[in-house]
Amino acid sequence: MNLLIVGSLSLDTVETPYGKVEDVLGGSTAYVSAAASYFAPVRIVGIVGDDFPMAEFEFLKARNVDFAGLVVEKGKTFRWGGRYHKNMNIRDTLFTELNVFENFNPVVPPEYADSEYVFLANIQPDLQLHVLEQMKKPKFVAMDTMNFWISGMPKDLEKIISKVDLLIVNDQEIQELSGEDNLFVGARKVQAMGPDMLIVKKGEHGALLINKESYFQAPAFPLEQLKDPTGAGDSFAGGFMGYLAGTDDLSEMNLRRAVIYGSALASFCVEDFSLENLKQLKLADIRKRFAKFHEMTHFDASNI
Amino acid sequence: MNLLIVGSLSLDTVETPYGKVEDVLGGSTAYVSAAASYFAPVRIVGIVGDDFPMAEFEFLKARNVDFAGLVVEKGKTFRWGGRYHKNMNIRDTLFTELNVFENFNPVVPPEYADSEYVFLANIQPDLQLHVLEQMKKPKFVAMDTMNFWISGMPKDLEKIISKVDLLIVNDQEIQELSGEDNLFVGARKVQAMGPDMLIVKKGEHGALLINKESYFQAPAFPLEQLKDPTGAGDSFAGGFMGYLAGTDDLSEMNLRRAVIYGSALASFCVEDFSLENLKQLKLADIRKRFAKFHEMTHFDASNI
Repeated sequence: MNLLIVGSLSLDTVETPYGKVEDVLGGSTAYVSAAASYFAPVRIVGIVGDDFPMAEFEFLKARNVDFAGLVVEKGKTFRWGGRYHKNMNIRDTLFTELNVFENFNPVVPPEYADSEYVFLANIQPDLQLHVLEQMKKPKFVAMDTMNFWISGMPKDLEKIISKVDLLIVNDQEIQELSGEDNLFVGARKVQAMGPDMLIVKKGEHGALLINKESYFQAPAFPLEQLKDPTGAGDSFAGGFMGYLAGTDDLSEMNLRRAVIYGSALASFCVEDFSLENLKQLKLADIRKRFAKFHEMTHFDASNI
Repeated sequence: MNLLIVGSLSLDTVETPYGKVEDVLGGSTAYVSAAASYFAPVRIVGIVGDDFPMAEFEFLKARNVDFAGLVVEKGKTFRWGGRYHKNMNIRDTLFTELNVFENFNPVVPPEYADSEYVFLANIQPDLQLHVLEQMKKPKFVAMDTMNFWISGMPKDLEKIISKVDLLIVNDQEIQELSGEDNLFVGARKVQAMGPDMLIVKKGEHGALLINKESYFQAPAFPLEQLKDPTGAGDSFAGGFMGYLAGTDDLSEMNLRRAVIYGSALASFCVEDFSLENLKQLKLADIRKRFAKFHEMTHFDASNI
């Protein structure tokens, strides 16, 4: 099945204890589509300025990512700069220049309207809603968001949340959305707002899939070196949504496999800067890491 | 096989957002032995004052816990008081009155010297060493420690660490012991100090078993209400060690099952104050929770 991805495209300048990169490919759409492209045909809706080095998209085009929904507007591309501390859970945003992204009005090309799987990356909630209104009858819609929209545009956010099948959040966002300290109590409240499922991203502690009547807890991959955490969450979302769209199977067990593929893609992403690792990675590498996840979580039922 | 447990016994005064208890049964030995007693015959070495309400031990005696190694000394029992914040990861110690525990000299009764499994709870490292010297030829020795000993008695601590099979720690303790920020790099350094295995306790994020050539990641149980986190780590250790001693099987798969039993006991422990839940819990309840852990971590190998 086809996966439609709507989000940001940017040129990032990132500094971590392991180095620095300038004006490299970034933005949620880039990470999500790169990760998803291993599993399913991907369609993107996004905007860049006329300064954007289009050769950056070549590796995605070679992997069946369709750019008919890309708008190239006169002006500069969205730029973001950040610096990670030694403890890479902490980062400072150095600059955010929205440029052409400021007027992003996501128009879904008519030939994309039948996409069965839709991922709404973290953009303004009214734009997420606008995208959904242009879709025919998607089978599965997932969205990401952030604390900025929870506090800044709660009404629009609640509206779009009520229309999706899956909301991807972190534990702090669950707290803010629900007003509950306990993650599991809070999650039930957020599910009552609409989505059947939640995925709680916990970074180095893995990810939690909360379905209607079950939990699935996935660990993070044990990495001895993280070079650049940028894009981890979007790579997770891409691996997850790509695998779902590629298999077109929404059973609990397949959702769990999708969580593991998402976790695998996130772990590869952070092992190098920007999308470097997602550019050269082979499906066989991803399969191997999936098997390692299975190996390190598996246990037999007890005989006592 | 027999499990010998050496650690503290205390009367605790604990306040959490859910209530307050005064002078209730506490100390590592109490939690470890209560949790272990579901699976194996337990022997304890410990000390209390002559003010100790001995009836508190009745439920343990009824579960095959042997108290021949208990010293009742003239004077007051070790008392500890703590208050947990709304975020129960934070607690203030209100008082620590060592009393008779200050002169604890753990003497292993001759009939305990053949115990095959030994758990050295968090006490002064030279005392842990002293216990081990009194043992004949234990098959599996595990120990707990804390940051206080890492900074305060590093030499003694290194000595005992070099002699055990398993060290139970948290991620901060791995950092302090190894000087490494990365958990997995730090763990390898700590393993090089002696123990084949580490268990990293991550609280609400579960536990990680690091063996010679493998990782096993176990989640925490999704609890909608924690009443009192006191004793969670010791209940984990008790469930883990009790299951190992009871099954006498040190294979990787059985170690993993033991981690899950430990996690189950820890989750029951924090659902009520002090040892209240560990007093009334049935083995069937524990088995059910084990099955839930399996249900919420299981996934099939992929077909893509």
